[in-house]
Amino acid sequence: MQGIATKEKIELLSECGPLKVWSVVVTILGDLCTSPHDRVGGKLLTALACRMGVTGQAVRVAVHRLRADGWVETERAGRESLYGLSQRGWAETQVVRPVIYAGKAPPAGRPWLLVAPPQRAAADFAARLPATAVALGPRTALLDAPPDPADPDVLLAQARPEQIPGWVGDLLAGAELRAEYARLADRARRVTASPAPANLLDATVLRLLVLHHWRRLRLRHGALPDMLLQSGWEGAQAREAVAHAREVFPRPALHELAAAYEGADPG
Amino acid sequence: MQGIATKEKIELLSECGPLKVWSVVVTILGDLCTSPHDRVGGKLLTALACRMGVTGQAVRVAVHRLRADGWVETERAGRESLYGLSQRGWAETQVVRPVIYAGKAPPAGRPWLLVAPPQRAAADFAARLPATAVALGPRTALLDAPPDPADPDVLLAQARPEQIPGWVGDLLAGAELRAEYARLADRARRVTASPAPANLLDATVLRLLVLHHWRRLRLRHGALPDMLLQSGWEGAQAREAVAHAREVFPRPALHELAAAYEGADPG
Repeated sequence: MQGIATKEKIELLSECGPLKVWSVVVTILGDLCTSPHDRVGGKLLTALACRMGVTGQAVRVAVHRLRADGWVETERAGRESLYGLSQRGWAETQVVRPVIYAGKAPPAGRPWLLVAPPQRAAADFAARLPATAVALGPRTALLDAPPDPADPDVLLAQARPEQIPGWVGDLLAGAELRAEYARLADRARRVTASPAPANLLDATVLRLLVLHHWRRLRLRHGALPDMLLQSGWEGAQAREAVAHAREVFPRPALHELAAAYEGADPG
Repeated sequence: MQGIATKEKIELLSECGPLKVWSVVVTILGDLCTSPHDRVGGKLLTALACRMGVTGQAVRVAVHRLRADGWVETERAGRESLYGLSQRGWAETQVVRPVIYAGKAPPAGRPWLLVAPPQRAAADFAARLPATAVALGPRTALLDAPPDPADPDVLLAQARPEQIPGWVGDLLAGAELRAEYARLADRARRVTASPAPANLLDATVLRLLVLHHWRRLRLRHGALPDMLLQSGWEGAQAREAVAHAREVFPRPALHELAAAYEGADPG
């Protein structure tokens, strides 16, 4: 009844895909800071990142870059540096929070189909589409919401989620994205099949790894795949497995995590 | 208060567009025959067509052709030939009757937008569209009703009549069609502005000329222009003027028309 060891769980999740260090730092701060003024000690941040497979040097470079970009702020507290989200970092984190932490798929909706006039240059049409749009042809695209501002020359229609041909599903979510979601769903289920590690740092690292890969995949696309593919697709299965992992590995309070870290490594 | 003369009214309507003789015969028989076994005497048919500007010889050629095509049937009654619609001619006339005689525009509807997959040959997609479809692009078309049978590879969406860009309106009804409808509306209004001629044959000829041009234009397109362009477009204005003309020049009973013809030309 022992289940797989924590080290193996971390490896399983780390193999879900590449870890960009700056993105790992954003995942850690974004998840652990639940108010704009929450700060994470530099040693704790590095300890978490190291357990996720990132070197301390790489963390320092990434934090430097994020500070230069205006995402992260640093404060001194005696001998230690404290890291937190800047005003902008907090605001941008808040924008995607409902997307990342949604436990349920959005209700099935009717996406908007846009058809531009034949005389419109296809490249011009494509360039003005929002990032979440999916092009179906040279002057035809799907959108999750009516375009704003509306272009009076573009014909709008609403599609029905009950009738989505396979080729549209393939454009909504390509084979690579589906495979990555399937792998994440599988591994999140495997690491939650046995009890969570007693060590709060270990449990938090598992939480952050699951969240990191979920965030990395989920921010690649808009609402369309969930609107149209619903519970059947790999992204929906990953959402369910990730939501369960967030229950198995709940978010620790920062002071508890800091205490656990001090206890583990009083140096 | 005299208004314009009947001869001038006939000329105004005749100038609405070309008269194909076989089509004039179909208009006459289709309007005057209100049951499958109604028959029109050859002399009366020729007299009506002649007043509409068609020679007796041309009527004989057209009737011959329509009989060969299985549209028209001939019976002998003593010295005279009687003409009527064949079973097929009656059936086909019945199919279009609601379209031709509709006094009101159909209620605004939501047409269906079809998008075929990128790998579908555009010519193949176009070839399978019903005649009433309007192509918006190589693999995109509007339809007034959902396609039957449905093609599972074609994405369906519904457009809204409130938001139809100008270029779609131009594809739904080209400048030539609109100009012809506008001319018919104008002339139908002018010939109905003064009292109908007392002579039943003259009044019937005016009715048939209005109906003929209306039928010629209305059968060029499906329900889409009315669904989407509604009361604002030239076809809707023509429908209204034609409906009024049908009231001013009501359909005569065949026996009354035959009696009026015998009285006018007892030879």
